[in-house]
Formats: sequence, C-alpha cells, structure tokens
Amino acid sequence: MPRDYFQRSEPIPYDPEAGPLDLAFRHYRPDEVVMGRRMEDHLRFAVCWWHNFVWEGGDPFGGHTFERPWFPADTMEMARHRADEAFEMFRLLGVPFYCFHDHDIRPEGETLAKSVARLDEMADYLGEKQDASGMRLLWGTANLFSNRRFMAGASTNPDPDVYAWCAATVKACLDATHRLGGANYVLWGGREGYETLLNTDLGRELDHMGAFLSKVVDYKHKIGFRGAILIEPKPQEPTKHQYDYDVATVHGFLRRFGLEDEVKVNIEQGHAILAGHSFEHEIALASALGIFGSIDMNRNDYQSGWDTDQFPNNVPEVALAYYEILRGGGFATGGTNFDAKLRRQSLDPGDLLWAHVGGMDVCARGLKAAAAMLEDGTLERLRAERYAKWEGSDLLERPLEAIAEEAVAKGIDPQPRSGRQEMLENIVNRFV
Amino acid sequence: MPRDYFQRSEPIPYDPEAGPLDLAFRHYRPDEVVMGRRMEDHLRFAVCWWHNFVWEGGDPFGGHTFERPWFPADTMEMARHRADEAFEMFRLLGVPFYCFHDHDIRPEGETLAKSVARLDEMADYLGEKQDASGMRLLWGTANLFSNRRFMAGASTNPDPDVYAWCAATVKACLDATHRLGGANYVLWGGREGYETLLNTDLGRELDHMGAFLSKVVDYKHKIGFRGAILIEPKPQEPTKHQYDYDVATVHGFLRRFGLEDEVKVNIEQGHAILAGHSFEHEIALASALGIFGSIDMNRNDYQSGWDTDQFPNNVPEVALAYYEILRGGGFATGGTNFDAKLRRQSLDPGDLLWAHVGGMDVCARGLKAAAAMLEDGTLERLRAERYAKWEGSDLLERPLEAIAEEAVAKGIDPQPRSGRQEMLENIVNRFV
Amino acid sequence: MPRDYFQRSEPIPYDPEAGPLDLAFRHYRPDEVVMGRRMEDHLRFAVCWWHNFVWEGGDPFGGHTFERPWFPADTMEMARHRADEAFEMFRLLGVPFYCFHDHDIRPEGETLAKSVARLDEMADYLGEKQDASGMRLLWGTANLFSNRRFMAGASTNPDPDVYAWCAATVKACLDATHRLGGANYVLWGGREGYETLLNTDLGRELDHMGAFLSKVVDYKHKIGFRGAILIEPKPQEPTKHQYDYDVATVHGFLRRFGLEDEVKVNIEQGHAILAGHSFEHEIALASALGIFGSIDMNRNDYQSGWDTDQFPNNVPEVALAYYEILRGGGFATGGTNFDAKLRRQSLDPGDLLWAHVGGMDVCARGLKAAAAMLEDGTLERLRAERYAKWEGSDLLERPLEAIAEEAVAKGIDPQPRSGRQEMLENIVNRFV
Amino acid sequence: MPRDYFQRSEPIPYDPEAGPLDLAFRHYRPDEVVMGRRMEDHLRFAVCWWHNFVWEGGDPFGGHTFERPWFPADTMEMARHRADEAFEMFRLLGVPFYCFHDHDIRPEGETLAKSVARLDEMADYLGEKQDASGMRLLWGTANLFSNRRFMAGASTNPDPDVYAWCAATVKACLDATHRLGGANYVLWGGREGYETLLNTDLGRELDHMGAFLSKVVDYKHKIGFRGAILIEPKPQEPTKHQYDYDVATVHGFLRRFGLEDEVKVNIEQGHAILAGHSFEHEIALASALGIFGSIDMNRNDYQSGWDTDQFPNNVPEVALAYYEILRGGGFATGGTNFDAKLRRQSLDPGDLLWAHVGGMDVCARGLKAAAAMLEDGTLERLRAERYAKWEGSDLLERPLEAIAEEAVAKGIDPQPRSGRQEMLENIVNRFV
Repeated sequence: MPRDYFQRSEPIPYDPEAGPLDLAFRHYRPDEVVMGRRMEDHLRFAVCWWHNFVWEGGDPFGGHTFERPWFPADTMEMARHRADEAFEMFRLLGVPFYCFHDHDIRPEGETLAKSVARLDEMADYLGEKQDASGMRLLWGTANLFSNRRFMAGASTNPDPDVYAWCAATVKACLDATHRLGGANYVLWGGREGYETLLNTDLGRELDHMGAFLSKVVDYKHKIGFRGAILIEPKPQEPTKHQYDYDVATVHGFLRRFGLEDEVKVNIEQGHAILAGHSFEHEIALASALGIFGSIDMNRNDYQSGWDTDQFPNNVPEVALAYYEILRGGGFATGGTNFDAKLRRQSLDPGDLLWAHVGGMDVCARGLKAAAAMLEDGTLERLRAERYAKWEGSDLLERPLEAIAEEAVAKGIDPQPRSGRQEMLENIVNRFV
Repeated sequence: MPRDYFQRSEPIPYDPEAGPLDLAFRHYRPDEVVMGRRMEDHLRFAVCWWHNFVWEGGDPFGGHTFERPWFPADTMEMARHRADEAFEMFRLLGVPFYCFHDHDIRPEGETLAKSVARLDEMADYLGEKQDASGMRLLWGTANLFSNRRFMAGASTNPDPDVYAWCAATVKACLDATHRLGGANYVLWGGREGYETLLNTDLGRELDHMGAFLSKVVDYKHKIGFRGAILIEPKPQEPTKHQYDYDVATVHGFLRRFGLEDEVKVNIEQGHAILAGHSFEHEIALASALGIFGSIDMNRNDYQSGWDTDQFPNNVPEVALAYYEILRGGGFATGGTNFDAKLRRQSLDPGDLLWAHVGGMDVCARGLKAAAAMLEDGTLERLRAERYAKWEGSDLLERPLEAIAEEAVAKGIDPQPRSGRQEMLENIVNRFV
Repeated sequence: MPRDYFQRSEPIPYDPEAGPLDLAFRHYRPDEVVMGRRMEDHLRFAVCWWHNFVWEGGDPFGGHTFERPWFPADTMEMARHRADEAFEMFRLLGVPFYCFHDHDIRPEGETLAKSVARLDEMADYLGEKQDASGMRLLWGTANLFSNRRFMAGASTNPDPDVYAWCAATVKACLDATHRLGGANYVLWGGREGYETLLNTDLGRELDHMGAFLSKVVDYKHKIGFRGAILIEPKPQEPTKHQYDYDVATVHGFLRRFGLEDEVKVNIEQGHAILAGHSFEHEIALASALGIFGSIDMNRNDYQSGWDTDQFPNNVPEVALAYYEILRGGGFATGGTNFDAKLRRQSLDPGDLLWAHVGGMDVCARGLKAAAAMLEDGTLERLRAERYAKWEGSDLLERPLEAIAEEAVAKGIDPQPRSGRQEMLENIVNRFV
Repeated sequence: MPRDYFQRSEPIPYDPEAGPLDLAFRHYRPDEVVMGRRMEDHLRFAVCWWHNFVWEGGDPFGGHTFERPWFPADTMEMARHRADEAFEMFRLLGVPFYCFHDHDIRPEGETLAKSVARLDEMADYLGEKQDASGMRLLWGTANLFSNRRFMAGASTNPDPDVYAWCAATVKACLDATHRLGGANYVLWGGREGYETLLNTDLGRELDHMGAFLSKVVDYKHKIGFRGAILIEPKPQEPTKHQYDYDVATVHGFLRRFGLEDEVKVNIEQGHAILAGHSFEHEIALASALGIFGSIDMNRNDYQSGWDTDQFPNNVPEVALAYYEILRGGGFATGGTNFDAKLRRQSLDPGDLLWAHVGGMDVCARGLKAAAAMLEDGTLERLRAERYAKWEGSDLLERPLEAIAEEAVAKGIDPQPRSGRQEMLENIVNRFV
C-alpha cells in the first residue's frame, strides 16, 4: 500500500541559501562537528508519535481539526498505515530517534491480554521498520492517563485493580522498549496526583507510587534493560497537583525510596515553566543532583497557564538549555525529543515538516552557540573567579561555634562584589 | 518611661455581641475547649516583631507611611522602647507567643562582636519582660538578607567571610533563642538562591547550604536546645529562585544531607501560593513526609505575584489548613505565627489591633470548623472507604511481573468509581 | 418514554437539619425574603445545558468518563431524550432558569439549513417543556467555537464564508431565544482572538467583530427582542489572546462602536481570575461603567492556569460578589448561571445534583451575607466618610492652573488617613 | 567640580571585533541607515534618571546596595552633582535622549512652592546641560507615588487636597518639560488604583481621574506644548489593581472621556507581561487603536510575578516588538526608554555602562531584524493572502438577516485553511 501523505521523496536538504518559502535546514547538519562530536550525536533528535500521528487537533473547546488518512487508527491495519507514514516522516526529516506510548502504536484491545498482544505485534512491525531504516527508539512509555480507568490515578489509584493493570502495562511497554533497543524508558505521571485533597490519602498514594517505581527498576534489571528509567516532572494539568512536580520534588521522592542512583529525569521546557522555573534551571539542578537524563524540547507560551507544547523558536533560550547540558557533559542515554504539537490550525502535511525543521534548526543554533560559549571560556572563568575565595578554605569542615568565634575575634567585615549580571548577559549575546 | 501608643488599658475582650465598630473577639476564647484541648493551646498564636514594630510601610514604589514613636530604633534605648510597646500590644491581644529576628530587636553594631553583644543585652531585656508577662517565644531567627553584605546569599555566598558572618550570627541567635526558652528556631533563606544562573555554581551553593544546616543542627544538640529547627520554604522573592522552594524541595534537601529527622518546616500560606500550591497541600505533604513543624498564617492576594503578607480573612480556607494540622495530630512545638503586615495605608495604632483580632478570630473559626469536621467523621469515613479495596492486598509486596501475569490471566477490567468531590465540598461547607 | 436517570421523584427539599449524606438545601429557600425580594428572584439561578448534558468528562489528556443514557445525542430522538432528562433535573433542583447553545440542544445537520431547521424544531420542543414546567430561559447562545470551521475565529475569521455562517447561526439562535422568551442573549467569543500575531490582522479583525456585533444589535431591535445582549469576557483559552479580554476591554470595544448603551457583560468568576482580577472587581467595574448584565457563577482553581469551571464553594468570596451586585441594584435581566462542570471523576447521577445543591446553597449564604452587610450599613457609611471632603468641592470643574495656583498659594500639606482595610475585612467577616 | 565616577573619557566605541570583556557596541551604530532612516532616529534611545541615579538598590527584603558619590541627593548641590554625572553617562553611551520625574532631579522642598521652585531651578540647570551636550528630553513626568501623601492615590485620592497637590505638581512638571523641549509628557498612575474594593468608590475615582486627565490636556494646549501626552499602562504593583491596567483598558478610558485623539500610550514590556500580554501584542493593539506612542524597553522575568525592570536581552522578542512598531510607521514623538534597573548586585560604575550597552545592542539587532523581515516582505504577503477573500466583499455592510438568508440559500460550507504558524515562526527565525 503506497503511502504518500507528504508528497515528496527527497529528504529535507541542508541549504542555508534556500528561499523564504523553501523547506530546508539552514543550521542543522548532522555531520557537522561541534566540540568534537557530530551534531546529530549531540542533539539526538527524536520525533514523538502522539502529537504527530495520534492527536487530532482537539482542545477543550473544540474537536478535531486534522484530517489524516490514518484516522481513526482503530484497526491493526490502520496502525500499520500510521507507522508507515511515521517512518516516512522520520526519513524526510533525517532524525535518528523516535518515541511512543503503547496507546499510540496499537489500538487498545477488548482485554488486557489482547492489548498486550497487539503491542507485541506492533513492536515487531516497528522493529522491522527500524532495521530497514536505521531509526532508533529514544524511549518508550505507557499511556496511563487517557482511558477512564485511570481517571483517579495509575499506580496511585484507590483501586488495586488499576495498580495491577498499570503493572501489566508497564511491563509490556518495558519489554517492547527493551526488544526495540530503546535507549530509555519514561514514566510521566499524568494522573499521579489529585483533584482534591478531600478524597485523597496523600501519604498512601506516595507510598504506592514509590513501591511501583521500585518494582519497575527491579524488573528492568531482571530483563537486562540497559537504558535509563526516566521520570518526567510536571506540576499540574491534567490534575490539580501532580506528585512529580518538578526536578527537586522528584529528587526528594527518589531519595525517599532509595532510587536516586537508578532513576533520572526527562525535563520538559513547558513543564518547567508551569512549575515556575526556567528550563535551564531544571537542567542545571538535575545535573547538580546527578539525575539529569533527557529533555523534551517543547516550549510553553509564557502567557498561557496550560501546557501549550509548542515547537521551540527562541534561540537564546534554547542556547542556555544546551549550555547547561554541555556543562554537565552532554547527553548520555538521553536526547532531544520534540514533545511538541502543531497549532491546531496547522492542517497541512507540510506543517508537520516545517514545524520540525524549524525546531531542529533552532536547536542546532542553540547548540552551536552553547558550544561557542563554552569554548570561549569567559563565562566559566568568571564564574570560577566569583567563588575563588573558597579555594583552600576549611570553613565547611569546622563546627559552627569555631567559625563564629573566629569571625567575631577577627572582626570580619565582608564587602560585596558586583555580580555583573548585565555584563554576563551581554557576553551570552555575543554567541546567540 | 510610660508607653501609651495604643491608648487603652483593657485587653481586647471576648464579646460576640459587640457592635460593628467595637474592638472585640467574637470567636477566639483562649479557654474554650476544642477536641479536648484549650483553644489557646491548639492555635498557639504568635505576633511577629518585624512587620509590626520595624516595618515602616514602604513598598518598592514608595517610602514609609507609618509614624511610630519608636522609629528609628537605632539606639538601645529606642530598642527597649519598642520592646515595651510590643509587649504592651501582646498583652492587649492576649497572645501567648511572639517571634523575632536579631535585626528586629537590636540596632546593628559597628562590628560583629558589638552586634552580638547588643543581641545578648536585648535578649536579657526580653527575658525579663517574658518573666513579667508570661509571654513565650515561639521562635527566634536571624535576618541574613537585609544588609548589603548578604546581597549574594548568606550561607551560599561566594564569599566565605559572609558564610562565617552567618555562622556567628546564627550561633548568637540560637543562643538567644535557647536562653529565652524558644520553642523553635527558624531559618528562612531569603537570599539563598540566585538572580542568574550565569554567575552561580548551583551545586556548590547547595553543598554549602547543606553543610551549614548540619552545623546548626550539631550546635543545637551541643547546647541542648530542645526546640525544633525549622526551614521556611519560599519559591522566590527577593531572589529569582530560592533554594528552599517548597515543602517537597526542602524534603529532598534534608534527605540529601541526612537531616530529615532533625529539621522540620515552617509553612507560610503566602509562600505556598507563590509556589503554586494550596496552603493545605503544603501542610498535608509535610505531615505525610514527617516534617511538619509550624505555620505562618498570612495569606497572599491571589491576584498579586509577590508576597503580600496579609492577615487571614477567609474562614473556609483557614479551616482546611487547620483540618490538615489536626489530622496530623496538631502542633507539637509549632504554632500559628502571623507573619502578616498591615496594608501600608493602615496607619493608626488601632489598625495593629484590628488586624490581629480579625486574624485571630478567623483562625478560631477555622479551628472550630476543622474540629467539627473531624468529630463528625463523615469526611474521614468516606476517604477510608475510597481506599478500602487495598485492605488485605499484597500487591505492594509482589514483583511487577507477577502482578502483570495475574492481571492478564484474570482479565481484570477495573471500573472507575465517583470521586464525589462536589459532595465532599458540600459537606465541608456545613462546618465553615 | 420514561426517563429516570436521577432515580428520585421528589424535588430536593429544604432541610437545614438533614444528615451529612442527605441531599437537601440547607440555605436556599426560594420564597425567603431578603431585602424585600424573594431569594429566587434575587439569585435567578440557571442550569447550563452544555456541562451537564453534553460534556462527556474529557480533558486534554483523557477521553470521556461519563456514561449517560443520552450519549451520543446525534439523533433528534436522543436530543429530546436529553431534553427530557434536563428538565427533570431542573425540576428536582427547583431552579427557575436554564441556558443553552444551539449545539447543545440539537445535533448538527449536514447543511446549514438543516441545522437551523433542527434548532427550530428543538426550540419548539423546549417551548412545550417550558410551558409544562414553568421553566424560563435565562439566555441562549450560539456555539461558534467547537466545529473546525471556527478554528481561526467566528466573526473574526479570515474567511468571509465563516462570517456569513456565524451571521446565519446567531440569527437562528437569537430567533429561538426570542421565541422562548429568553431574558438575554450571550456572545462568548471563544475563538475571537488569535494564536499568533504573525498571521493576524488585528485591526481588521476588531473591525469585523464590531460590525458583526452592530448587526446583532440591529437585528435584535428588528425582531423586538427585549432581552439584553451580553458579551462574556475571557482573556485567553482556547486562544492565546481573546479580544473580549475583560470587562474594561469590552467596555472600550463597545464605546469604539457606539454600543455601550446596547450591550452589557456576562461576567464569569473563572474568567475574571484568568484575567488577573477578582470576581467582585469585574462586577464593580461593570456597574461603574453601566454595563453590568449577568454572571456565570463558577470558580477557577487559583492554582490552575486554565478554566476549571468548578462549582462555587467559598461563601466569603461569593458574598463579596453579591455585595457588588446588590450595591448596583441587583440583577435586571441577568441571573446566576452555573457555567460549572462536575469534576470528571464525579460520575454518578447524584453528583449532578450534589454539585448544584452545594453551589446554590453557597450562593444563598453569600446573598444573605451581602444583604446583611448592606442593611447593617457600616461599610457603606465608612466608604462615604472616606470621600466626604469632596462634598461641595469644585475642584473637578476648575482648570489645572487655577487649582495649582491656589494649592501653592495656600501651602496645602495633605495628611494621609488610615484606609482601615483590616477593620473593614473584620466587619465583613461578621456577616459571612 | 570634576566628576569622574565612570573613570573613562572616551565614549563607548562601535567595535564588532572587540574582545569579550571589552566594553563596546557590536551592533548599535547611530548613523547606520535602516529602511532609509538613521538607526539613532529609529530607536530614539533614552536613559532614565530614576533607576540609574536615584535608586539605591533596595528591594522589599533589603536596603541599599549601591554606593554612589551623589547619595543622598538631598541638597541642590548634590542634585547638580548627580546631574553632572548623569550627563557624563549619557555622553559615554552616546544616547540622544533622557527622561526624569520631578522627584529625581530635585530634592523635595518643605513646601509645595519650594518644591516647584527647586524643580524650576534644576530644569534651568538641565537646560544648560542640554544646550552644551545636544541631549534632548524624551519625556518628563511627575512622581505621584513615593511620598506617603499619595499612599491612597494621586488624582484618585479620597482627599481633594491631594488632588490639588497633583494638579500643581503636574502643571510644574509639564511646564518644565515644555521648557526643556520634551518630546512627550508621561503619566504613570502607580497609585491610581486600590488595595481593597471595600474602601473604594470605583466609579468616583475613575471620574476624578478622567477629569484630571482632561485638565492636563487642556493645559497642554494652553501652553502650546506640542509633545504627546502619554499614559503608561500597568495592571498592578504597587497597588492590587491599577486603573490603567493595559492598552485596551486605557483605550476604553480615553474613549469614555473623549480623549482618544489627545492621549497615547507608553508601553512597557514588563507591564505587558504582568497584564498577561506579550509586548508585541500591546504595541500592535495600540497601533490598531491609533494610540501608540512610546515604549519602555525593559523586560520582566517570566518566572517572577513583580516588575523586575531588567535590561532587554532577548533579540527575537525585541525584534517582534520593533516589527510591530515599524509596521505601524515607527516612532513619531516616542522612543525607546530604558526604564530598566541594574540587578542590585551590580554595584560597579561599569555595570551601569555594560547594562545600557548590552540593551542598546539587543535593540539594534532587533531593529535590524525587524527591518529585514519587513523588507523581505514574505510575512506581510502571507498575512494579506490569508484575508484575501475579504477583498470586494460587502458582508460588513449588509444586515444580519440578509447575510443569513444568503448563507442558508447558498448552502455554504466553509473549509478551514492552515494558519501555518510554525512556518511563519521559522521565517522569522531567518532574520533574528
């Protein structure tokens, strides 16, 4: 069955001189070497399945706007049709990775067993397509939030049957991810939270969630899955409060269950914003705490209070994110996933391509700027100088009263030094 | 020296029938027994020194509006004058506790040694006044944010001399608090954070802060201080990002430094709001994590993006906060501190009294409503029923694959049950 | 065809002594007289069709949760079934009014003509049910946002055919509303706004919207519709920016097109919050500008950045809203519509009743408190006193330079007086 | 008296090749011609007096951090010292304009008359310095918010004496601005709003504010001032609600008092953000409504809920702002004022220079990008095409029922077209 939704056979070219309406990369060139590494290997771009191939353009005030030939994918045949078009899009874009939920790639079956079987069948199909194309799986995940059975939570559901359902589903998804050579496995707790404290046993739900995560980690080791387990923080939406609020919250949760060396975070710009943080803050904090894993590179509109999942378009912001990633050593198993959706008015096949090409170019520029800042070294030198007085100090080792006694005796009178923020911002602007 | 700023000798009476312009308690009656405990012992009200006796009414766009006879308190004599008036206000209000920063009660000296000496001197003075009045200290704390030396942080300052200064100051404040029989000691990290990541070594600053806190805990044990050490979370303001963002963040921080059994939190409604949480969420979470300590009962305006520190005035909201406190067993060392300030247009001595009387009455109503909800028991019964299917379940102990296998084999098909939020809210409204 | 979704025949009784799980009004009593007017006539409650009978419980991250016997209402027979159950619910609740969109009460036809015809047919059906029950229509409106044809706006759409479609639809809805004796007709511009300025001709779209509104007003007069035309402000969601941002924006828009005496506003608490205002602010401002019409009494969660459309549950807040309504003279044609939806976990028929009963009781308490505050008179007396120095002043009539000359000559030195906010809040709390 | 605070004699050079720590313009070159106009004449940069020469670095949680040789400027001699240093900084930066409040340039006198006389005296002094340097005044304004007499409002104060005081002060400032050849006169209503509705007569205050503005306009004509009168919108802070909320609100206010042809707006990025708008939205809307005047080019931190007044540092955002300005025809009397303050840790004289140089370069890049986008023309062509179907349409002129009748008869079925947002954003990114 020929698939020709995108109506072009040539991959999008790299052509910095292309005209304004020509679809071309102006900055992203996979083989260009940046700080000793190919750009493709730095960025590790992934296209997500859900927003591109499942979402129909609905929002809380309106139904579908998109009309794709693969809608509705409620049969296995249509699911394969969808997969064919997806891989065709990956080819046109030249991305090395993709991501999916179980729910994205197979129609749900009438029974749990049937759903698992369909997942296995589709995983085989994707495996073949991977082999044929060289595409790789950045991460797999389970959708534990769309069906009404999850309305009151997944592993935190008051009903143990839902907990069991989630266990079976995550096992199946982890198996599939493992089989497909996935580099990571992600857990986003979209319904792990509450709508009202009045009907919620907060302590119990956190305990259940911790026990569940421990099981997932155990199972990963059991099957020899070498990828990272990643939690994706988000503060709210759909629920009023989500337990994986932000990086710091996840860190505390991991420590409480002794999982801080086992699990890392997948950080999304939009979720960072909703939690009151900048994207680079969340990345820098995760690096400092040793739990940085991967990113979802999709921005939130600063004036909207919900997750807008837009493609990145602001190079200076993206540069600061990659700067923190590079400072932390770059991606290990993680990558740059576009968990981004078209605006619902962007109806055309070409819009899917424009959006990704634009986003990839923005990331490429951001990466190059970040690398240039690091290579220039001025920023890091100034940062180090700011703390230079700590070199050789033994203050951290001495008890409070000893420090106090000496401070009083010496009559210290510390004088502030300029933080030079505006100069530093000016320096950043040389590179972005 | 006679102090007569408030121009009344009689404490504010309890009189539910008082006229609209009569200053009287209509709900707060210290000796009324609620759930087997005197109301005073439940609520443990404290008046704060800074907003009432130090703050002059300035805001970022205007200078002082208040004209108090004790301004400026830049001499020890004026500091005592201020203390006299403060204790007079405590007497009129009939509150059992108060709170202070070093900075509030003594003028800063020209040297660190002088500042410490003045603190000691004023602590003696306050001790005498405590003895004479029966007033107690809910908590003491150090102001490590107002002076320009702290502009780049206190224990997280790039300059080790500032770290040393903080050590000396906290030691002195902890000593004074101990001497005055304080029930707690609070650390609010107003400048422990950053303005820009560009000049900040996040990992190092967190390490310094952790080491500092460990020293404070060690010192507390050394001197035999039996009160609780409390961290007060706040997400931002004055800094762009404060490290003690919210309860979950503090919990992770404590775990990282092994301090989760040593340090608790002092939760402020306004700070909770700024961090994107409801007040009751922060209390419930702290209880679930075992780190609940005390509260600052001052609300933020929901339409303002900064800390407005207003007196509480919404009984249903306050009731939900005390409900979580009572569910968690009530205050141990903590209490209800009004870290609240008058609106800067509230110029008159009487405004100080009206504000506290209004706030205390709102809390008293909230407490009584919370107690009635607990005693009625319907809410807790419904909550327990929601999780009843977990009784006897061994799911939490079994490995993922075993649960999965059984779930698939059994063909489970969990059916959602109503969360009944509107009914629960309706029930709450019977009591508030 | 018997309809028995709610499984009870008796209307909800008024019974302040009912047990905690008994469904009963504890405060709302239609015939109770408040400030010389029956409570029912003050509050003019309306139940909305869309959230109760059309919405299936979906949110951006999950599909339907509700399973109603009238889903899907894609045939006229099911539409009538739905109407029967709706009127049954109105009866049980004892509300005098309801509201609808065309889209709610009839399935869309294959053509515009067919849709209009179906609307007419259903309006006849509703008319019969109104006659049989005594129910009245508070307002009708057109859904110009759900179908994909409206994705880029309704009257502001770049495609004139959509403009024409909207004209035909609003005409049909206004006709139906007129025929059913509707007290008002509402326009909510859910898609009148933009997603990006980059593809938007802001000036042109505002002009089109103004022309459209003028036509609606002309047509209203032509057919002799005596109800009010109401615009419902909302700042954003679904669009990034909605043109009817808030009351002040709508006021400016009306003035620009000379419609300020023809059109009023329907103010929603949730939309006020999203725009950064308190509900009472929007009501007070609309009253001051002479454009107050009606209210949607559904609250937003203060910690969520999207429209949560929850039932009201905070009496003190609701009291302040009714206080401003009563100060402005009460409702003329408007009323209290619950544009509120169940939480999506509230699955049961009973939840629909509990939610409305709870909301109505909260409003009844709010109204009574507001009336008591007005009758007490202290607040209004204090407000008047604050401006008393203006009595007899001719400053407003004199030119700048004359005032200036006199001020300088006299050497005026104005002294601030306390704004007494805390005292006023304390007084309010006597009544709520 | 020699002033040498900045310790350099040469103006900052234009040198794109300067090293990372060299203070130099890399993009701003006054004489470079962009779209037929010198860059300086496009941008019309102004330095503000208050943040640079008056503000001491305080914030709500800490006092001064800056130590300038001209603090405190409480004598006329120090005021002149300050002016000398200010003009020296203008010279070093090479800006053509500056702005001031009365309060910035002269110490307040003991009487109103004395304050006016001092203002006149300093205006003479500034006039001389203007003549000597070629500097011009972009706008003058009155500080009607800092002194406690304004705590309850300026022209909206409950006390008519304050109203008179404001009249005298604005007259004096307008006189001084006129004398100094100011291009505009600005009114920012920092205290024109309320803290609580409970003590506020909203309608009366708006009437007073309207009458006041009318007087100012009358007086402007009387003295022949040819500059524009500008209102600066801000939604809140310091007050809970400010009457000049945003551009749309100001527009409605002007229309209500018939001043829409007399008064324009001075739009600040930070204030736009606080009101929930993008900066470009406010500019585009003001242009569409015919009231665009000038801009304050200082950004807010997106994660902070108060006015952070930072120097601009994001070129893509700034480009979109200038794009809307250029589309509207560029500045007439207005310009680009940096109402921006240093971070309070930026203590050094050099920080004042770095901040402005960085901001000016960001603006220069933004302007050039905006001009390139306009000259390229693709964006405008695509925008026009989107509305092309409206050419020749008479829909706007026809009555509702005629449009409806035809739409039904024709059986129109409008089909949505892609809004192409991602493609447009991609195109923008070619230029920024």
